Amino acid sequence: MSTVTTTVDDGIATLTLNRPGVLNAFTLDMGADFVDALRGLDADAAVRAIIVTGAGRAFCAGMELSDSDNVFGFDPRMDLTPAELAERWQEPEVSDGAREPGGKLTLAILECRKPVIAAINGPAVGIGSTMTLPMDFRLASTHARMGFVFARLGITPEACSTWFLPRLIGVPSALELLYTGDIIDAARAHEVGLVGSVHEPDELLPAAHALADRLTRGRSPHAVALTRQLVYRHLADVGVLEAHLDESLALRHAAHGDGREGGLAFLAKREPHFNQPAPHGFDHIFLRA
Amino acid sequence: MSTVTTTVDDGIATLTLNRPGVLNAFTLDMGADFVDALRGLDADAAVRAIIVTGAGRAFCAGMELSDSDNVFGFDPRMDLTPAELAERWQEPEVSDGAREPGGKLTLAILECRKPVIAAINGPAVGIGSTMTLPMDFRLASTHARMGFVFARLGITPEACSTWFLPRLIGVPSALELLYTGDIIDAARAHEVGLVGSVHEPDELLPAAHALADRLTRGRSPHAVALTRQLVYRHLADVGVLEAHLDESLALRHAAHGDGREGGLAFLAKREPHFNQPAPHGFDHIFLRA
Amino acid sequence: MSTVTTTVDDGIATLTLNRPGVLNAFTLDMGADFVDALRGLDADAAVRAIIVTGAGRAFCAGMELSDSDNVFGFDPRMDLTPAELAERWQEPEVSDGAREPGGKLTLAILECRKPVIAAINGPAVGIGSTMTLPMDFRLASTHARMGFVFARLGITPEACSTWFLPRLIGVPSALELLYTGDIIDAARAHEVGLVGSVHEPDELLPAAHALADRLTRGRSPHAVALTRQLVYRHLADVGVLEAHLDESLALRHAAHGDGREGGLAFLAKREPHFNQPAPHGFDHIFLRA
Repeated sequence: MSTVTTTVDDGIATLTLNRPGVLNAFTLDMGADFVDALRGLDADAAVRAIIVTGAGRAFCAGMELSDSDNVFGFDPRMDLTPAELAERWQEPEVSDGAREPGGKLTLAILECRKPVIAAINGPAVGIGSTMTLPMDFRLASTHARMGFVFARLGITPEACSTWFLPRLIGVPSALELLYTGDIIDAARAHEVGLVGSVHEPDELLPAAHALADRLTRGRSPHAVALTRQLVYRHLADVGVLEAHLDESLALRHAAHGDGREGGLAFLAKREPHFNQPAPHGFDHIFLRA
Repeated sequence: MSTVTTTVDDGIATLTLNRPGVLNAFTLDMGADFVDALRGLDADAAVRAIIVTGAGRAFCAGMELSDSDNVFGFDPRMDLTPAELAERWQEPEVSDGAREPGGKLTLAILECRKPVIAAINGPAVGIGSTMTLPMDFRLASTHARMGFVFARLGITPEACSTWFLPRLIGVPSALELLYTGDIIDAARAHEVGLVGSVHEPDELLPAAHALADRLTRGRSPHAVALTRQLVYRHLADVGVLEAHLDESLALRHAAHGDGREGGLAFLAKREPHFNQPAPHGFDHIFLRA
Repeated sequence: MSTVTTTVDDGIATLTLNRPGVLNAFTLDMGADFVDALRGLDADAAVRAIIVTGAGRAFCAGMELSDSDNVFGFDPRMDLTPAELAERWQEPEVSDGAREPGGKLTLAILECRKPVIAAINGPAVGIGSTMTLPMDFRLASTHARMGFVFARLGITPEACSTWFLPRLIGVPSALELLYTGDIIDAARAHEVGLVGSVHEPDELLPAAHALADRLTRGRSPHAVALTRQLVYRHLADVGVLEAHLDESLALRHAAHGDGREGGLAFLAKREPHFNQPAPHGFDHIFLRA
């Protein structure tokens, strides 16, 4: 049984973290299930946008610390000697773990072709907070709580949060949240710019659905996909000159697919019908892990 | 006859997009005229700063979609087979068009030695909005409207806007404007940080002129030029260590030109007279396409 | 006698610029003393965080222009011919000066393992302002004044300020402060986001001390140190993919030191005791000049 569930309503998918009995605590299995589900929704032409939320009263309570399948065999009850530690780091499953699981999730989210919206319905702690940073929008319920609690646990932030957080909320606020590990409420998260809006609990998913619809209805899915990739690629990796060349390539290919239909519709003063196949060269600019 | 006009008043130049009959719609000719005019003003030692605005009631209504000289031969009424399309991409004028015209304009603006101020007097749509992003300041009239309408037309954003917009207004606001393609009014543009101030229509150009004057009167033109280049270069391309080396080089050269005069004036408690030639090595750090 | 003094109170160090008779004007000696003192505090395991402030009524009045030991032999009273200038640039002490002193200070601050807080008690001009940008937090007294006065003196900004300032307060505000060289008061500095809070003069150091304590008490010093480095390294130099690999390495090593203690404490519902040695591989990700 999967640790995440998905539904699709009128082209808007909802991916739900679904271990409500343990506040949707994250495990390596959940990471794999999340990535599989996300890729499935991304490949489904009927899906225009993806909402991520949690089942029950939490969004995600963080990494399951007592899960022996955990990060680098991190179960802290293991007391290894330095020699045992060095040996363990040679084992394939730990050596593979050299890429921590939060970052793998972040990179999978960045690869998406559809807008991704976090609907933070309750506590979002550790990876529960960091996994929302590469999502395009963060909406919070008044019950939401967020916390980058790593330094309290003696560990370091993950899921590329040290890269994203200062870019999203500025250096001083990012450092304050990361150093203190404080858990903040929805109002404070809104004040520092970590979430874009705060909603009554019953209104959170409808608000996320309305936003997702407004972002994508009547827009070219290929243009939206390429735009998403251009923004993150140019935030992530490249200078302005390479951005110019990337945009030129994307425009050149888009212009003869949905762009042709869009132009004809504009000239005829009618609504466009964006149902073209993906343009030639479409995959060239996508971020890859 | 040029599609742009220029005037200079007390050292402040105004470059006006001048096709008022078609809301200053952008053509490849206008792009070439804009770059020529900008380079002329940039090279004119009597000019301290440059204001960009539109003639008549619009700033710039966007790319002229029905102009057959347009992007990549983009006139959407052309219905090419894949084979014809592939052949067309080999033709020199299209292959040259692999660098889309908005980005060429952006790079020319980045190369300027003078502060550049957008005075957005009315609708600024598509390239009308994106061309303002590499300008140092954006002032809007209450009549201004801005819109990154690309996804509505099935095409992708250009003029390095996917690089600039998230850096100027944050990732969520940038993605919302780019996905929706919504046209927003001046108040909303101010709220999201896209423009720095909003003015009554009659007060827009005077406010831009006053800002341009305040930024440059009595300041060393070489120091201003180098500062502008250092900021964009370090935003665009390089890490903090390379920034240190660049600043060191700029300071080393500036210090013996206007810097010597500035220091003498400071010690003598008098106003400086910044009329030195450009310092040795001045061009070394300039952004180039 | 050193031009800076240091004290430590309950694990919080205060580094004081100490030339009050000349408003703590900066000299090359002060730069060297500052870096020495900072490295000493950074290496002292009893120190959790570092506050930087000024003795007397100023924070730092800027570079001592009449100091003949100054930047590149910058004393503006020297009137060198182009030939003498070219010759002088070959001399070792000038050629070494190709790295200007502000940037050396910035890089030393970035290398710190402890949070660094600027307590700006009065005028902070030129390098007095730019040296605070790589500090994690800027708190101001109502008596604080800040100014990036370089263009008024005919010289260019330093201490990597052209890299930091647009990232901290946005491009338009950064360009306005750098072009004009205006000296702004504490309220305006707060408004543009240059300082995080403004305090009555008597309450400035207590507020800085309380913040420093709140950031570090009960937190793993190794996790805080690695977090600080990850944030600046990922702001400075690398794309998101490299950030993922860096974070993975840091987490892998932290998890078996303070992370083990943190996990055990969490499972036992007790306070953690973070007194482990630095984890294996700790130095690998540190920013270096």
